[in-house]
Amino acid sequence: MANGQRHPRQAVEPSAFGISLSKGNGRPLFIQLHEQIIARISAGELTAGARLPPVRRLAEQLGINHMTVAKAYKDLAKAGFVEGRAGGGTHVRARYGTRRARGAEPAVGGPLLAERLYELAHAPGVIAFVTNYPEPDPECMKEFEICLQSVIADGLSPYFIYDSSNGRIGLRRAIVEYLSQQGLATTPDDVIVTSGAQQAIELVIRLLVPYGSPVIVERPTYYGVINALRSVGARILEVPLESDGMDIDKLEEHLSRHRPRLICTNPTFQNPTGVTTSIAKRHSILALARTHGVPILEDDHNSELRFAGSPVPSIRALSEPDDDVFYVRGFGKVFLPGTRLGYVVTPVRARPALLGLKAQSDMHTNGIMQEAMARFLARKNYPKILERMKKVYSGKQHRLIASLSAGMPPGTLIGRPEGGLSLWVTLPEGAEVSDLYYRAVRRGVAFVAGEAYYASHVNPRTLRVSFGLLRDDALEEGVSRLCSVVNDLMRPRSALNPIFT
Amino acid sequence: MANGQRHPRQAVEPSAFGISLSKGNGRPLFIQLHEQIIARISAGELTAGARLPPVRRLAEQLGINHMTVAKAYKDLAKAGFVEGRAGGGTHVRARYGTRRARGAEPAVGGPLLAERLYELAHAPGVIAFVTNYPEPDPECMKEFEICLQSVIADGLSPYFIYDSSNGRIGLRRAIVEYLSQQGLATTPDDVIVTSGAQQAIELVIRLLVPYGSPVIVERPTYYGVINALRSVGARILEVPLESDGMDIDKLEEHLSRHRPRLICTNPTFQNPTGVTTSIAKRHSILALARTHGVPILEDDHNSELRFAGSPVPSIRALSEPDDDVFYVRGFGKVFLPGTRLGYVVTPVRARPALLGLKAQSDMHTNGIMQEAMARFLARKNYPKILERMKKVYSGKQHRLIASLSAGMPPGTLIGRPEGGLSLWVTLPEGAEVSDLYYRAVRRGVAFVAGEAYYASHVNPRTLRVSFGLLRDDALEEGVSRLCSVVNDLMRPRSALNPIFT
Repeated sequence: MANGQRHPRQAVEPSAFGISLSKGNGRPLFIQLHEQIIARISAGELTAGARLPPVRRLAEQLGINHMTVAKAYKDLAKAGFVEGRAGGGTHVRARYGTRRARGAEPAVGGPLLAERLYELAHAPGVIAFVTNYPEPDPECMKEFEICLQSVIADGLSPYFIYDSSNGRIGLRRAIVEYLSQQGLATTPDDVIVTSGAQQAIELVIRLLVPYGSPVIVERPTYYGVINALRSVGARILEVPLESDGMDIDKLEEHLSRHRPRLICTNPTFQNPTGVTTSIAKRHSILALARTHGVPILEDDHNSELRFAGSPVPSIRALSEPDDDVFYVRGFGKVFLPGTRLGYVVTPVRARPALLGLKAQSDMHTNGIMQEAMARFLARKNYPKILERMKKVYSGKQHRLIASLSAGMPPGTLIGRPEGGLSLWVTLPEGAEVSDLYYRAVRRGVAFVAGEAYYASHVNPRTLRVSFGLLRDDALEEGVSRLCSVVNDLMRPRSALNPIFT
Repeated sequence: MANGQRHPRQAVEPSAFGISLSKGNGRPLFIQLHEQIIARISAGELTAGARLPPVRRLAEQLGINHMTVAKAYKDLAKAGFVEGRAGGGTHVRARYGTRRARGAEPAVGGPLLAERLYELAHAPGVIAFVTNYPEPDPECMKEFEICLQSVIADGLSPYFIYDSSNGRIGLRRAIVEYLSQQGLATTPDDVIVTSGAQQAIELVIRLLVPYGSPVIVERPTYYGVINALRSVGARILEVPLESDGMDIDKLEEHLSRHRPRLICTNPTFQNPTGVTTSIAKRHSILALARTHGVPILEDDHNSELRFAGSPVPSIRALSEPDDDVFYVRGFGKVFLPGTRLGYVVTPVRARPALLGLKAQSDMHTNGIMQEAMARFLARKNYPKILERMKKVYSGKQHRLIASLSAGMPPGTLIGRPEGGLSLWVTLPEGAEVSDLYYRAVRRGVAFVAGEAYYASHVNPRTLRVSFGLLRDDALEEGVSRLCSVVNDLMRPRSALNPIFT
């Protein structure tokens, strides 16, 4: 055997098959045998097809019971390293282990939209109307930097520890004060800090929705909610969104018929439609939820960015302490995208279970970032930043609405929300939209296809046009490209495909 | 009505019931009516029991169709604001909406252990053997601070953006280099950065385990895995852990009988037992997984902290590119706890779906922290930090084993792992352990009760004794308290409860 030459010092007799057992080391002999044979296979010393010595002969040569050898061989066969052959004897397998045919790729809830959009938004030359969060104001970034520096200056050692899952008390207190300025009274105990609002949404859904249960959403709604619901196998019940919020009749019908486990709503500048639910409908939703004993997940993503009209109290602000309203918010959609800091104001009785799920998901959110954000809020310089941002984005929204209204074909519906960073556009009936998305990207303009926001019965003539990260000098050109693509779709098909006329 | 006095300027005729409709504003009249009545109820102007005017009378007074009023009343009743009464008429409800009896508290997978342990570890006077991560080395913290400062100095603006879900390329490259030093070859594309190892574990489980499917774990195993499995309703199949890893016979039996969807293993310094799976068994597990087409989740939590023996290659390092080994690791259990940075080295074909789930969970992990960690690794000052840490914790482990061996009753089994920050202790048969945990805390010493680590058939005589955050001067005293509590348990019951003899 070549083996003997490569390891001359071992001087193992071929008759012992390169195996050297130690009886004094406390490890069972069959395990030593098993391991050494595997080691020789792994090292390539025993190659495919090599025959192991017969059980009794090896046992005799090693001076051990033949049952020990038989046990080792059996284990090796079970583990797929060796196999018995029809012609007799035990042989090393061609490649240890044979792979069984496997099923399809593992399923995951929903399309990889975030990834797709990210790539799209960064493709060269494409003007992307895809971003529903703002470019951070330079002063806002500077504020955060000052806060981060002060956290470092005070010493980082308190943050290198596994911290409490509910979040740092300083940040929870700052959040409570921030919310109180908007008419929402709560306490630090009711706040759980999360790694962004998306995590809060997912945790609440995972907490409240047993696998396969019915859940109510607005139609259309944010795909992050749809995906999270799909991943718990929820039966998604869509309630059409009217100009002032959900169709209350339909909501009531779903509540009565299906006993859903949760109502998901995004009542202010809804993503994607921009619709704000009226105060009356907020009361109605709350009252219906109460009557039917169904909790509410209220996603309040960017209500600060109001350009017109009066603020509407959140459903949580309208609720009473024993209502089950989970109020979710983040810092990314208004002030500081990318920090992955959000929170959920939680009904008292759900707090322990939600904290358990948070701990199970990622233990806690990064403490240094939490502390920097707490200080950012405590410095209270954000109101003037917010005023400036509102002026900037109100202007962008105004120009975008004007340009789209001028350039889009007659019959196009363009939402006119009172705030937020997106417009919801519905193309006229008859628009041939089947490949609109790809045509647009080829023409150097991107949006978010409305299909992402429907759980069923997609309206393919819808698109979300967002202006969060859009540079002013790209707005007109982007709209011009988009309108040109859309107007092409409105021509008779023959004009597009003359060959087939 | 008192109402008229409170709002004298409105001068609303009582006959119109305080309602003033506008026919020109485009809002349907029934919605205006609905909203105004709700507004009056919300404001407390219409109190419990107040009767609304009869439909036809109000319609007449407002000069509108009676169907409009009827529709508004119907919606108000549906939403729970008003109700019809047996004596006739429509009345405001006592408290709008009546709550239906609700079910039990929402279920969540597993006990709130993280929270419980956190509180325990911080109780005054308690010496807590509960921490499986180290106190960060001062130089290690300083290194991270330098890196964080350099990230700030280079400008934070690149981080205030919704970033790619797989993690920043700089960190993924640094991770690849770190792993290559430990014999694991991979590429940045195969690495997905997560918010700590716990998130990676949970994402892989959620990806691969359809609701209610069987999954193999070691027995005992880390409760973070058990909880994550429970939350997807997994059927947990436990394979007893022997001194060199899983019982391969039992593993093979489960694989053949139950067609599990995943094998979870923590092969080096296993949490909680400290057991390191032998190279032979790693090969066997890999080969069996291959034969049965079952993916492996390999949690490699702190293999750097080896005090004795030789490093054993990870299962991922032993695998071939088309094996489905998900290799999970974090930075918290060795260098920098609390940063919530981890990663999973992912089989290529599972990458898109896992990324989708990561995006759905928290979009991406905080970019500033990722970049600081990338620079921490790139500076390559950690090897000497690690050497120092190994010396410190090796010493602690040695002293802890010696003290426990001297103080624990005869028959106690104390694990002697080659590394890591925990010892697994099994008390002798006959120890009356039913309230050990509470006795210990009352005596000023805490550990982690072994029950946390069993999915079923708990061995109540087990405990995990960890020395991560334990101060040297507390070690002897803590062991003394613990041994004293345990020795009490070994006395005949009569000695504890003389009243009942």
